[in-house]
Amino acid sequence: MITRRKTRQISLGRVKIGGGAPVSIQSMTKIKTSDVAGTVREINDLGRAGCEIIRVAVKDAADAESIRKIRAKIKIPIVADIHFNYRLALSAISSGADKIRINPGNISKREELIKVIKAAKKRKIPIRIGLNSGSLPDNKILPSTINHKLSTKLASCAFQYIKLFEEMDFRDIIVSLKASDVVSTVRAYRELAGKCDYPFHLGVTASGLPREGTVKSAIGIGSLLLDGIGDTIRVSLTASSQEEVSVARHVLGALGLRKFGPEVIACPTCGRCGVDLVKIVQDLNKELQRTTNDGRRTTKHVKIAVMGCEVNGPGEARDADIGIAAGKGSGVIFRGGKIIRKVAEKDFVKELLKELRR
Amino acid sequence: MITRRKTRQISLGRVKIGGGAPVSIQSMTKIKTSDVAGTVREINDLGRAGCEIIRVAVKDAADAESIRKIRAKIKIPIVADIHFNYRLALSAISSGADKIRINPGNISKREELIKVIKAAKKRKIPIRIGLNSGSLPDNKILPSTINHKLSTKLASCAFQYIKLFEEMDFRDIIVSLKASDVVSTVRAYRELAGKCDYPFHLGVTASGLPREGTVKSAIGIGSLLLDGIGDTIRVSLTASSQEEVSVARHVLGALGLRKFGPEVIACPTCGRCGVDLVKIVQDLNKELQRTTNDGRRTTKHVKIAVMGCEVNGPGEARDADIGIAAGKGSGVIFRGGKIIRKVAEKDFVKELLKELRR
Repeated sequence: MITRRKTRQISLGRVKIGGGAPVSIQSMTKIKTSDVAGTVREINDLGRAGCEIIRVAVKDAADAESIRKIRAKIKIPIVADIHFNYRLALSAISSGADKIRINPGNISKREELIKVIKAAKKRKIPIRIGLNSGSLPDNKILPSTINHKLSTKLASCAFQYIKLFEEMDFRDIIVSLKASDVVSTVRAYRELAGKCDYPFHLGVTASGLPREGTVKSAIGIGSLLLDGIGDTIRVSLTASSQEEVSVARHVLGALGLRKFGPEVIACPTCGRCGVDLVKIVQDLNKELQRTTNDGRRTTKHVKIAVMGCEVNGPGEARDADIGIAAGKGSGVIFRGGKIIRKVAEKDFVKELLKELRR
Repeated sequence: MITRRKTRQISLGRVKIGGGAPVSIQSMTKIKTSDVAGTVREINDLGRAGCEIIRVAVKDAADAESIRKIRAKIKIPIVADIHFNYRLALSAISSGADKIRINPGNISKREELIKVIKAAKKRKIPIRIGLNSGSLPDNKILPSTINHKLSTKLASCAFQYIKLFEEMDFRDIIVSLKASDVVSTVRAYRELAGKCDYPFHLGVTASGLPREGTVKSAIGIGSLLLDGIGDTIRVSLTASSQEEVSVARHVLGALGLRKFGPEVIACPTCGRCGVDLVKIVQDLNKELQRTTNDGRRTTKHVKIAVMGCEVNGPGEARDADIGIAAGKGSGVIFRGGKIIRKVAEKDFVKELLKELRR
């Protein structure tokens, strides 16, 4: 349904980014990376929750060296996140990182960048050029763009780094442009999208607690994906990484870009509703999570509609694979657009699950 | 920051929609409208939570007649939601509704629509033409669009109704086009945006439980608003209406279209973080809600940044009105870009609140 922007394809081992590959989900560990056992546990938990690429902070030499040991014990590609110190990038590369992320905003010396690019090229691993609005390098803001808006500064700054990488004949590039507000973030990516064919890593930085953070991330990441822009995503929340992965799945699911098990659509209920719809949908959801949601083991996608009355009811229930349109104290089950039978309110969940198992 | 689509302005009493008015927040009651006391209580609670326009379901004559009594006891405009029966629309109009919403998908007879339009015109109240993909009228799907995608069908169907209203010299129109999936919804609104100057009511229908529903609504509503499309919004969740209003506020806040009290931006923490940032931000948020969040009494907008380390820390903390950039067990408070003082981890929340009160 969404026509995606054409990009070259980048490989992180067997996980591909861009060039038609499914939009992948990333997250980041929260524990100090030199705590190998703790980091491995966190990564494997996240992998089970649906995380497909993991990033770890590399703050010192011990973190960089731990990557080798961690990598041997996990199943998903590992990305080393490096700021300030280009030597840590070199060390993470030789330690076997599947990709590195550098912020040229704080590693901006040409000769240092060149050393990192050469090392990545030798090991054939990609680099994410990850710019943050909070750390744009002054020396890379062209005089001609100094009065431009933040999004233009971010995009033009990224473009200059891309040119440097290309001069070194290095094209294993992924780009991210994170501003601290949603509007600038979206505009920056849109601006760069027409100027290069590198895949984009999408995210809204510092988005905050789950509620605000989910809204900001969904708007920022979602509106770009809706227009076909974006190849791998990371939802940032001041919360557990599991929650980040769960929201990321919902974003991709909402746009039909990925499918993770059953999708429940349900009306918000109003004065017309003659059943306790909120409770019914909550119960259904709990049952579905219990029986199907174990991250990797994503069951077949099914659209289940639970509608509280005749207004949207039959229409949307009919469109879904399985649907129920409630009346007063009872409802009608649809399957593939056809009425199957009438059921009492107390049996809604049981009967929907029965239909689902068929 | 966002240039909004130019539309004519529609009035619901003193609340304006479109024509440069702030994007307003709507919700819908869940109780039977003929329960006047219950409906009034629900509306006044929602008003305190930030709901600016309320819609009630009108299912029968008793509901329609109750509008007069309800309206006398509430402070926000009331919209009557009518399906199937045009007589209920006439009755709601004479009962004093500030606006009516009809779904021409189920009230599609020309002569019935004309009666409703005439009555609204006489009382000088606007009508929302609210189309749902689940109930598109077959007779309004032009043969030339029958194989088109859903978004085109929705937009072209709405356009035909607009023409009928205009033939009656009625232009007090608001339009909504709700498809059961996010992508079609956004495309339908985009398609109609260039073809008329009526304000749009945005929403994603049947979005489901709070988590999925928030993501779907944020993407659908947010990506349109980001491009300047949309004048009043309703977040639909299979949850309490309070929650709908809260998410709606977050959507408008994330895009800078409205400002509701303090905004906290915070990093997701990673292996670099030397403080318990999630707890700090949760505590800060609780304190802020306790002291400032009483719906209408929205305090001045302030951007507070809580950053876990030096990577995004000083940059984004500096950009915020008040910020803290943490180190190991302590942090530095910024105010208006300048370092104020160093504080211990245990005093972060206290010190931030102290700065906020100044």
